[in-house]
Amino acid sequence: MGRWEPNARGRLEQAALELYIERGYEQTTVAEIAGRAGLTERTFFRHFADKREVLFWGSGPLREHLVAAVEDAPDAAAPIEMVARAVEAVGELFGERRESARRRRSIIAANPELQERELIKLATLSAALAGTLRRRGVTDPAASLAAEVGLAVFKVAFERWVGDAPGQPGLSELIRESFDELKAVTAGG
Amino acid sequence: MGRWEPNARGRLEQAALELYIERGYEQTTVAEIAGRAGLTERTFFRHFADKREVLFWGSGPLREHLVAAVEDAPDAAAPIEMVARAVEAVGELFGERRESARRRRSIIAANPELQERELIKLATLSAALAGTLRRRGVTDPAASLAAEVGLAVFKVAFERWVGDAPGQPGLSELIRESFDELKAVTAGG
Repeated sequence: MGRWEPNARGRLEQAALELYIERGYEQTTVAEIAGRAGLTERTFFRHFADKREVLFWGSGPLREHLVAAVEDAPDAAAPIEMVARAVEAVGELFGERRESARRRRSIIAANPELQERELIKLATLSAALAGTLRRRGVTDPAASLAAEVGLAVFKVAFERWVGDAPGQPGLSELIRESFDELKAVTAGG
Repeated sequence: MGRWEPNARGRLEQAALELYIERGYEQTTVAEIAGRAGLTERTFFRHFADKREVLFWGSGPLREHLVAAVEDAPDAAAPIEMVARAVEAVGELFGERRESARRRRSIIAANPELQERELIKLATLSAALAGTLRRRGVTDPAASLAAEVGLAVFKVAFERWVGDAPGQPGLSELIRESFDELKAVTAGG
């Protein structure tokens, strides 16, 4: 069935982001995405369930990384330290993907339905983090607070990262800075 | 035009919450809500734009209270302290409304569309808080972090409040406890 297309997934993703920016997310069809990538619709659907999934397929791997990092944290680590390690590890995942992260963000900012989806994604990540902390013996409200606060730091660092001019610090570094800033901010009260 | 109905708004709200729990939010019509409250559909629409607004009309007043509390905080207060005052003030607003808060929460938990709406509401509140902090001269990332973290504390305290058995601490007290817990949690890293 269907011949093998080199990096079909990456080409489809790239084509989709371009079209969502040029024409708007709503107005873009799967046929157009496949056409721009020089592939068939059938190939598109081998990689993505629908055009929204092109923007959100990453939330599964993101959650797995967060959960694995908390599971692997040393027993002696404080809950917030477990969360900070996990969020920093995720920051490294994004590495060189700033340009596509920036595009993705502008697409999502232009569409209320996608914004809702993004908020749900973050809430799901926070719930997964809190659940993992509880399995490691952290009690509530510390588990929920550490998870919520960790995601808040991630959001703030991510916004700085995609907003900053090129040559600024990487995402992991901004995350570390934001955790330090968090300590300063919460100690201020 | 329509005679004056004593506490029509409160009766409609009460009837709507009952029906959303008994029959499900999706299945309930405005006509049924008005009927249960002993009022007309026309009266319903004088008070609420649609059946969703019965659950979300409070977000406007909530935002105004948060913003006003941050605006009124003393100049010497640290950003997180301004946010803590604002969130505690909002906690007092809820006061005796725990039973309806609990009902509202179970209705929202049963419906993905309402969950999305609730997440958007919280994100809007966080943005309003951060904007007010900036107008008071707090720079970023401290403004965004303090706002995000303040909302995170609110969420965690609110969940405890609606989940706890009767006779537990009030919402404001749980919010204060959660801000203390936050300090302990973030200092732990």
